[in-house]
Amino acid sequence: MSDGKRILLTAHPEGMPDETHLRLEPMAIPRPGPGELLLRTVYLSLDPYMRGRMNPAKSYAQPVKLGETMVGGTVCEVIESHLDGFAAGDLVLAAAGWQTHALSDGTGLRKLDPRAAPVTTALGVMGMPGLTAYVGLLDHGRPKPGETVVVSAAAGAVGQIVGQIAKLQGCRVVGVAGAPDKCAYVVEELGFDAAVNYRDVDFAKRLSQACDGGVDVYFENVGGAVFNAVLPLMNDFGRIPVCGRIAHYNNAASDKGAEGGASELVRTMGLVLVRRLTLRGFIVSDHADRLDDFLRDMGEWLRSGQLRYREDLVQGLESAVGAFQGLLEGRNRGKLLVQVGTDPTLQPA
Amino acid sequence: MSDGKRILLTAHPEGMPDETHLRLEPMAIPRPGPGELLLRTVYLSLDPYMRGRMNPAKSYAQPVKLGETMVGGTVCEVIESHLDGFAAGDLVLAAAGWQTHALSDGTGLRKLDPRAAPVTTALGVMGMPGLTAYVGLLDHGRPKPGETVVVSAAAGAVGQIVGQIAKLQGCRVVGVAGAPDKCAYVVEELGFDAAVNYRDVDFAKRLSQACDGGVDVYFENVGGAVFNAVLPLMNDFGRIPVCGRIAHYNNAASDKGAEGGASELVRTMGLVLVRRLTLRGFIVSDHADRLDDFLRDMGEWLRSGQLRYREDLVQGLESAVGAFQGLLEGRNRGKLLVQVGTDPTLQPA
Repeated sequence: MSDGKRILLTAHPEGMPDETHLRLEPMAIPRPGPGELLLRTVYLSLDPYMRGRMNPAKSYAQPVKLGETMVGGTVCEVIESHLDGFAAGDLVLAAAGWQTHALSDGTGLRKLDPRAAPVTTALGVMGMPGLTAYVGLLDHGRPKPGETVVVSAAAGAVGQIVGQIAKLQGCRVVGVAGAPDKCAYVVEELGFDAAVNYRDVDFAKRLSQACDGGVDVYFENVGGAVFNAVLPLMNDFGRIPVCGRIAHYNNAASDKGAEGGASELVRTMGLVLVRRLTLRGFIVSDHADRLDDFLRDMGEWLRSGQLRYREDLVQGLESAVGAFQGLLEGRNRGKLLVQVGTDPTLQPA
Repeated sequence: MSDGKRILLTAHPEGMPDETHLRLEPMAIPRPGPGELLLRTVYLSLDPYMRGRMNPAKSYAQPVKLGETMVGGTVCEVIESHLDGFAAGDLVLAAAGWQTHALSDGTGLRKLDPRAAPVTTALGVMGMPGLTAYVGLLDHGRPKPGETVVVSAAAGAVGQIVGQIAKLQGCRVVGVAGAPDKCAYVVEELGFDAAVNYRDVDFAKRLSQACDGGVDVYFENVGGAVFNAVLPLMNDFGRIPVCGRIAHYNNAASDKGAEGGASELVRTMGLVLVRRLTLRGFIVSDHADRLDDFLRDMGEWLRSGQLRYREDLVQGLESAVGAFQGLLEGRNRGKLLVQVGTDPTLQPA
């Protein structure tokens, strides 16, 4: 067997990653030894954190080394098992990365029940992005009924969940997104109270009007101009869970190199002090202790129809690089997934 | 009686305040009516927050209006009482402001017992600066034994207390101050583990060497270059209680007017995220609920000799403006007080 494929990191991108940094190449399908499984990737999750792993420096996790397969969460089918507890045909949540096939010794795998929920949800609303939204909003944002919550990247994998959980907490929710259809989606389909397009020329004014009682929780996914527009609207004792800063992910080098220009920081810290704000960075992998609570609550919200989600599915591993570029530019609509192989749950058995 | 004096705010300073903004003028000593007290100011506390009150815009408190007496905490002697519960000769903690005499209806006064502690401590270690240190470090910084705590303005009214409380919690404490004698003071007299002078050309390198296991809590009093030097040293899950930013207090206008220059903010927020930092602004007046705990603990630490403090006393209301300028420039040594009138507790009765 040699008809596998994988995508390697072959160079550290300075700005937007492309095929010169992420090279698709054929791969011999590996053979599992004793105690091993052969996995076939069905779905690959594409997520903003991956951009950080392409840089040479460690941020909170080790970077991907040059010549290695890009990392990523996947839903895989077991196609050959030499490990007790797993059988061919099992579907598992795995971290097989950007490739069609992988070996596993079972570490970190979670079996999925396709009858309980579509297996793709294990990479989205019932998975890492969902837990990120849940922990970031509830534990770090601590929203109270009647408060105003603003969420950026509102139509994205995390943002769409944040806003809906905030609504379930009795909050007023304002989304920020970068396209009219995204704004319409979060208001009309997901029940946000308002949404503002950050590409509008009078964005800051519109945001201010949409938040006329100020902002109590800002769920920060993007940084840049959106952060700067929300900050002055923060109420006393506001909370800013810092989940992501996607506006800056392609600019790390130039951000680091710039000199001077203290004014925005000075202004930010001035408001942190005067308004007694809390800015707290968080990373979902520190919060595994909340997984059971999350799965229980989210499962209930999904079953009862109180929470909805959208997925954006692209076809084929060869589409992964272009889709990832789109993610960094906000072209996706909802949780971005690559269908790497056929989904056995969608086929006649 | 017309031999009183007061200092009015007569103009909003753009940079350093001086006598053109803060005018000393004679004042007729007021006469107390029914239910009123006449107070004579013995000590006036000078504190960095006062600079913010001289600006026209509201920050967290209302600004002082032009033509009004500058506000400030004071220790006063009751010299005439028409109010039950107070008698001539009583010493009280008051907010009489920058003047020799004031009327009061008793609101917010606290009687002081000169036998329990020197009355000046009510403006310092046992007062607002002490409570600021206590709440900011313990409630917002949450130091754990063995952690490294860095405190800026280390020899000042708040910083000297922060470092000593941190030592009592079993932490390693590094002070940052702006003069060799201040650095020597906090190490030799107060027991800090190290101190670094931020005016040294290789300050950032020395600070890094003094904190070779990184920084878990940074008690932020100053902003500017000190903040920028500490931030990269922060350990994962570090906490930054934001108490003050004295380096910027004279520059509000230029900070607001500056455009662009996002780099320092971007870098800061990047570290907030990646290292899961918590930056939290706080203001002592929100924490009156901790006053009893504070007075109990601080009283015990002072009586047992576990905690020491230094006061910097200048003579006469006419010295207040110059002393306040010195405070903004770091020329004071310890808690800055103006002796406005004679202290009856230091005289033969």
